[in-house]
Amino acid sequence: GDGKLKRSLVIISTLDGRISALDPENHGRKQWDLDVGSGTLVSSSLSKPEVFGNKMIIPSLDGALFQWDRDRESMEAVPFTVESLLESSYRLREDTVLVGGKSLTTYGLGAYSGKLRYICSAVGCSRWDENEPEPEDVLLLQRTQKTVRAVGPRSGNEKWNFSVGHFELKFVPEVQPGVNFLEGDLKGGGVKRDDPKVIREEEEATAETKDTVIKVSVADWKVMAFTKRGGHLEWEHQFCTPIASAWLVRDGKVIPISLFDDTSYTTRSDEILEDEEDIVEAARGATESSVYLGMFRGQLYLQSSVRISEKFPTK
Amino acid sequence: GDGKLKRSLVIISTLDGRISALDPENHGRKQWDLDVGSGTLVSSSLSKPEVFGNKMIIPSLDGALFQWDRDRESMEAVPFTVESLLESSYRLREDTVLVGGKSLTTYGLGAYSGKLRYICSAVGCSRWDENEPEPEDVLLLQRTQKTVRAVGPRSGNEKWNFSVGHFELKFVPEVQPGVNFLEGDLKGGGVKRDDPKVIREEEEATAETKDTVIKVSVADWKVMAFTKRGGHLEWEHQFCTPIASAWLVRDGKVIPISLFDDTSYTTRSDEILEDEEDIVEAARGATESSVYLGMFRGQLYLQSSVRISEKFPTK
Ligand SMILES: [W+6]
Ligand SMILES: [W+6]
Repeated sequence: GDGKLKRSLVIISTLDGRISALDPENHGRKQWDLDVGSGTLVSSSLSKPEVFGNKMIIPSLDGALFQWDRDRESMEAVPFTVESLLESSYRLREDTVLVGGKSLTTYGLGAYSGKLRYICSAVGCSRWDENEPEPEDVLLLQRTQKTVRAVGPRSGNEKWNFSVGHFELKFVPEVQPGVNFLEGDLKGGGVKRDDPKVIREEEEATAETKDTVIKVSVADWKVMAFTKRGGHLEWEHQFCTPIASAWLVRDGKVIPISLFDDTSYTTRSDEILEDEEDIVEAARGATESSVYLGMFRGQLYLQSSVRISEKFPTK
Repeated sequence: GDGKLKRSLVIISTLDGRISALDPENHGRKQWDLDVGSGTLVSSSLSKPEVFGNKMIIPSLDGALFQWDRDRESMEAVPFTVESLLESSYRLREDTVLVGGKSLTTYGLGAYSGKLRYICSAVGCSRWDENEPEPEDVLLLQRTQKTVRAVGPRSGNEKWNFSVGHFELKFVPEVQPGVNFLEGDLKGGGVKRDDPKVIREEEEATAETKDTVIKVSVADWKVMAFTKRGGHLEWEHQFCTPIASAWLVRDGKVIPISLFDDTSYTTRSDEILEDEEDIVEAARGATESSVYLGMFRGQLYLQSSVRISEKFPTK
């Protein structure tokens, strides 16, 4: 009912590919939890030091590649992305073939039940639970995943690979009535980029409920709520894997939660082995403070709320 | 041995996704036949007249979209491709969500046995038959497939979809020795577009063996060999599905076989039903003679050896 429609949710995407929903007005209690079964958001063999000697290639979650020179302790953007590497008119050395792809998949689910209604991807759509007893607001989770593998053309032996992805979250507005012609969709009047005002409006919105401000600590894998008055910790939720994205869904709007208000990057020692931790600390010294360099199951990755490539020099 | 290295092959990619190899010096006898099991090169629900009234959207095999106005009998390029439609900053109507993807997969196989050695794709590499008793030249088949689906955001009901793909063929040169550093791969000196001279050289090459000229009839689903002297038909091979691409592999080179020397477009009546045939004939009247409009299992598609979008006005 109406009460339900006004409930807020904190939606969290973690690097293992899962999505969780917390109830911010009930001490951060878990409302629902979803595993879409499509694997981790980041994986790579590039970040293994033995692969390329003293150079280390680190992917960011939005698909850019960075090169860390351990001798010079510098971090530089590599001027290529998944898309450009996969262009067939480009090629690397004669003895390297690139394969991979980019996929865009949408999951439609009930906002408050977390119940999956459908999955639509390149291979088709599957739907469930169509006989809903009562209608429920729908959340759209859109996952983009980009993958490249370099292989030897004769043997098919893989040399290196990386795959990066992220989720976007949308709250579905009421369906507009009207004709449904492709021409109308595709011609100038109907096709446009997102209205920047809307974007700016979203950027200005704060991740707050009535009484609390929602924060995320990427280094501690935690979501926390602080009271607006007095600023003490009201509740926190510990995740078991790193947080990739976070949103507050409130009053039918999706408000991104900034991941970088917290500048203290303590490393969870129980998940990162000692030799890996040394690597993380050394590489982190080469990054800027507002860019987070993490390690997830042995994979280095970069994470930021702005376009990372705009912040680094290109050699 | 040397004898084997000098054998020629005619390689055919058909729209059902299969690859065949014919021996042009043995009356076009089939050398081998490969089904990689990844489905047809083109499928679409756009070309059903009931979907969008009097407009009909027809995909070309290279990923462009065309719009056929049956009243004005005109064919126009639609200014979008799979890539632009899948950009998340673009959106169609509020009540439409786009999903899909682009994949690049490589199949490595023995040139003369047709034996599959490996498949490498976004999901990984599989290899077979590694203990080859003797080395064999390797053919690389690279399949690119692009797919878009439009769905309703609440229900996951699909509105329309299309998927187009094609194979490219490469003959693997001897592996160059040398260091294998990613930096060397990715920086300016090592990365380049294809040398245009090489391209031009390939374009100038003719699809000929010692005694015959190889031709393809796209409308009749046939490969034919004519004697250079006298021009009579030496052999022909009938395929059961339309031909998408054809190459002659000779002396370690891959020579594309032009599909459009034959300007007689007779329609195979046994594969196209009568009401479909009417549609094909009407739509074909709106195209240029060097662009082939075909129907494959109820799906209209366009095919050309040049970039189709360069030949049509964009509204
Ligand atoms: W654990
Ligand atoms: W048949």
